[in-house]
Amino acid sequence: MQKPQFPSLNDIRHARVRIKSFIHRTPILTSSAINEIAGCEIYFKCENFQKVGAFKARGAANAVMKLSDEDKAKGVATHSSGNHAAALARAAQIAGIPAYIVMPSSAPKIKKKAVKGYGGEIIECEPNLQARETTLEKVVKETGATFIPPYDFMDVIEGQATCALEFLEDEPDLEIILAPVGGGGLLGGTALLSHEWDEDIEVYGAEPSGADDAYRSFKAGKIIPQTKPNTIADGLLTSLGVLNFEIIRRYVKDILLATDSQTIDAMRLIYERMKIVIEPSCAVPLAALLANKALFKGKKVGIILSGGNVDLGKLPF
Amino acid sequence: MQKPQFPSLNDIRHARVRIKSFIHRTPILTSSAINEIAGCEIYFKCENFQKVGAFKARGAANAVMKLSDEDKAKGVATHSSGNHAAALARAAQIAGIPAYIVMPSSAPKIKKKAVKGYGGEIIECEPNLQARETTLEKVVKETGATFIPPYDFMDVIEGQATCALEFLEDEPDLEIILAPVGGGGLLGGTALLSHEWDEDIEVYGAEPSGADDAYRSFKAGKIIPQTKPNTIADGLLTSLGVLNFEIIRRYVKDILLATDSQTIDAMRLIYERMKIVIEPSCAVPLAALLANKALFKGKKVGIILSGGNVDLGKLPF
Repeated sequence: MQKPQFPSLNDIRHARVRIKSFIHRTPILTSSAINEIAGCEIYFKCENFQKVGAFKARGAANAVMKLSDEDKAKGVATHSSGNHAAALARAAQIAGIPAYIVMPSSAPKIKKKAVKGYGGEIIECEPNLQARETTLEKVVKETGATFIPPYDFMDVIEGQATCALEFLEDEPDLEIILAPVGGGGLLGGTALLSHEWDEDIEVYGAEPSGADDAYRSFKAGKIIPQTKPNTIADGLLTSLGVLNFEIIRRYVKDILLATDSQTIDAMRLIYERMKIVIEPSCAVPLAALLANKALFKGKKVGIILSGGNVDLGKLPF
Repeated sequence: MQKPQFPSLNDIRHARVRIKSFIHRTPILTSSAINEIAGCEIYFKCENFQKVGAFKARGAANAVMKLSDEDKAKGVATHSSGNHAAALARAAQIAGIPAYIVMPSSAPKIKKKAVKGYGGEIIECEPNLQARETTLEKVVKETGATFIPPYDFMDVIEGQATCALEFLEDEPDLEIILAPVGGGGLLGGTALLSHEWDEDIEVYGAEPSGADDAYRSFKAGKIIPQTKPNTIADGLLTSLGVLNFEIIRRYVKDILLATDSQTIDAMRLIYERMKIVIEPSCAVPLAALLANKALFKGKKVGIILSGGNVDLGKLPF
């Protein structure tokens, strides 16, 4: 694939201004206990405190606010059963436009409730990818709404990149940044921004070994889709997007893996030592770091905690 | 009881300077979702992020740092199976002096580990109050260590008062402050400071209905000790201290009760909406507020989240 047009540092700064009043500038936390265990100096960017409980609020807001007035009037649409659905419904509500969210009939009630709470219109479909896509196509055709994909879309990636922008503005000496990778929206945005900010910053993706398509794609130099993912990190089940891969293969240093058992240990460490609530996907970067300590020894490392939407009745400890 | 000598605002300011480098100035968080449910504007002072995971770090540090050099050299002692034990061991470690902690043989391993981690010396005893007191007496006699009680001690109360001092410095418009009450160290310190700061600020204690001795004592005008407490709020089982009662009956507006079921609902709300980890005792003030909404309608209310030391394997949801 020829190099697509990537957003510049200036584009990302504009995105930040565009979405500024709709998102939190999330805090950065540290833990001396975790630093001691890790053997490096870790800064945690807390997107679990973000609006809708995840970094997804950034990309959705950016994509919606960039639409022309004409397109805005017809609304936005997506298929998602996760945080992107709520984030898009919220962004649309702020813009005062309709959001059509195609969700599998099997989606958890709490996810549907979140979307409805932001005024989103839910269109149910059979719980398989083909049904999702054909239903979405139908909705778009009927309403003229603009499809905003969850990660394989440059305006979404540009929005997610604002997270790393804030991170480096607040902690300009970071030598390494880790972000989890599912579809690659957050990792892509982080890698783009970091590359633009300072080419010497190393960006690592962190992925569950039970859904390691980004790892395998990165090594193979081509996209290898994920089949039958099996991991507790339920935010990282999807396959890498096309645009996301193009960024990641250029600007990411490596993809590191963590087993579910390592992820659960890291998650517990964050709950116990930092007293914050995160979702399992969020713990994968710390787990991957702790499984590869030598790479980070003595460095100043940034970890993006991607979200905090976890079913408290199903914590793995 | 004749009015004891209470610390002044100036004394509490000095305490804050004394302990400043040993504790965190904890952040204040808000949640628009919780405000909407509560019908008032709530500010949460997050002592769950405090050193040792609880406000107890303040009182213990203040009491230790106020000792004469001669007394310091002989060390400090207490009996406790809770956060005060870890807080005192830590304060002693910082001062470079011994800490003798009498703990019941039945105390949870994790509590013993915390004390040992701060270099405290654990002396085990039978799990009853008499054994704790006689063992402590023996330790104090043998070592010459100074007994630092967990709450019924003015230097400890003065230390806990620094929390409300920071709170009002950061949010000077608070009209009401709520703190949980067990022995009354935190509530006493909060009431003292608030009274000194501005007599118009109303301070409420919040107590589990299954351990409501402070409520009953407050209404009766004399201390009625707690027998057979039965509540999930395991940090609030103890009876009100003597000095604490003297402050509370003078400067606290009222004590509000919350059932365990209300406390669990409030705890879940804080986990889900604020994405932070708190211990059950910590949720009692929000539960009491939600059970008495009319009292707080439209007001600017401060709630002290007292600590975050919870057994994650035993969350009530």
